[in-house]
Amino acid sequence: MQRHFEYELDGLKSNIIKIASLAEEAIAQSIKALLEQRKDIAEQVIAFDRQIDEYEIVIDNHVVDILALQQPVAIDLRFILAASKINNDLERIGDHAVNIAQSAVKLADAPHIKPLVDIPIMAETTKQMLRDAIDAFIHKDAQKCRAVLINDDVIDNLNRKVVNDLVEIMRKDPGTIDKALDLIRVSRNLERVADLTTNIAEQVIFMAEARVVKHGTGLTAKQG
Amino acid sequence: MQRHFEYELDGLKSNIIKIASLAEEAIAQSIKALLEQRKDIAEQVIAFDRQIDEYEIVIDNHVVDILALQQPVAIDLRFILAASKINNDLERIGDHAVNIAQSAVKLADAPHIKPLVDIPIMAETTKQMLRDAIDAFIHKDAQKCRAVLINDDVIDNLNRKVVNDLVEIMRKDPGTIDKALDLIRVSRNLERVADLTTNIAEQVIFMAEARVVKHGTGLTAKQG
Repeated sequence: MQRHFEYELDGLKSNIIKIASLAEEAIAQSIKALLEQRKDIAEQVIAFDRQIDEYEIVIDNHVVDILALQQPVAIDLRFILAASKINNDLERIGDHAVNIAQSAVKLADAPHIKPLVDIPIMAETTKQMLRDAIDAFIHKDAQKCRAVLINDDVIDNLNRKVVNDLVEIMRKDPGTIDKALDLIRVSRNLERVADLTTNIAEQVIFMAEARVVKHGTGLTAKQG
Repeated sequence: MQRHFEYELDGLKSNIIKIASLAEEAIAQSIKALLEQRKDIAEQVIAFDRQIDEYEIVIDNHVVDILALQQPVAIDLRFILAASKINNDLERIGDHAVNIAQSAVKLADAPHIKPLVDIPIMAETTKQMLRDAIDAFIHKDAQKCRAVLINDDVIDNLNRKVVNDLVEIMRKDPGTIDKALDLIRVSRNLERVADLTTNIAEQVIFMAEARVVKHGTGLTAKQG
């Protein structure tokens, strides 16, 4: 029974790594489509989201099966519940990649209204956050999550800067409004990805330390 | 043991009803603050979010305790896992109310750039969706969820209309750009609330019918 349980847990870990790498790739490709004005890549991202959606369902069912058949407690229970929520967050990251890809399609036909500098930095930072958060989850390493929480502030600041810059451009030339709104949408979607990644990091800290850092309340949770 | 388990499940239901009503009230008040240009109400919504955050943590810990101590299976296990995810969605709805309230603060000092007609309709529809989804969850009534899924399309269309109207206004008068962007932000946040409510409805269908309607894949899940 114990060996079978370890086997199931390893399977769950592999599934989370897989869906995380699909979500990260979707973000990377949606930004590539935007920067290189490649409609074909954007459309691939949109079509590919179905695979991420299906993978989420596979993992959801895996979680139900493990809980029903193995009835884990303590850290194992917390790990499985965290996996369930992280799975959900990763699927939503895929949805944000689709939103970015939709804007990339609309922005592919004419030159960009400004050189895109901050958005690629946001995308790189966000991908690094996601890798750190998943790595922290797999290795139950709460320490690694602190970097994720700090980077979330970096992303918030960059998002504010991008929005302000674009408002300035719109004000000077109302002909840019449609395109500027799409770039703002891209920036806000990256900010949401960073938020979801921060959720993941908070889940990991909750699981590893059985202590709640969410919402900065400093509340202490009961040991599971 | 069985009676104690029923007691725990009833407690969990009450907690979900409570956090749902807090989230619904936060949305209602944030829209009231916007329409009546009441900064004081907007600031109350922002301050109140802490209570929703803390309630989420209480419910998270309740879920861990029930799973660890009662080791439920089948429909009960699905119900508890659904509660855990719904809890998460409701806390995020509270975050969207905060975003709306922040825009309401910024829009409180000068007359609105247009009469707000569609946004109150979106808010009313979204609140009804939320009530239907939570009601469906408590009564394990998947049928009730279909209305939620249909209303989500209504909200998507209204959001598109609001954004298009505001782009038109910005184009004619670039002096309105800042205010128009805040109204677009309100509309998009309501659309996200409707999405999260749709997630809740999908969880209920999944739980009640042990069948996955998510993402329109038509996949059939294993019985728990």
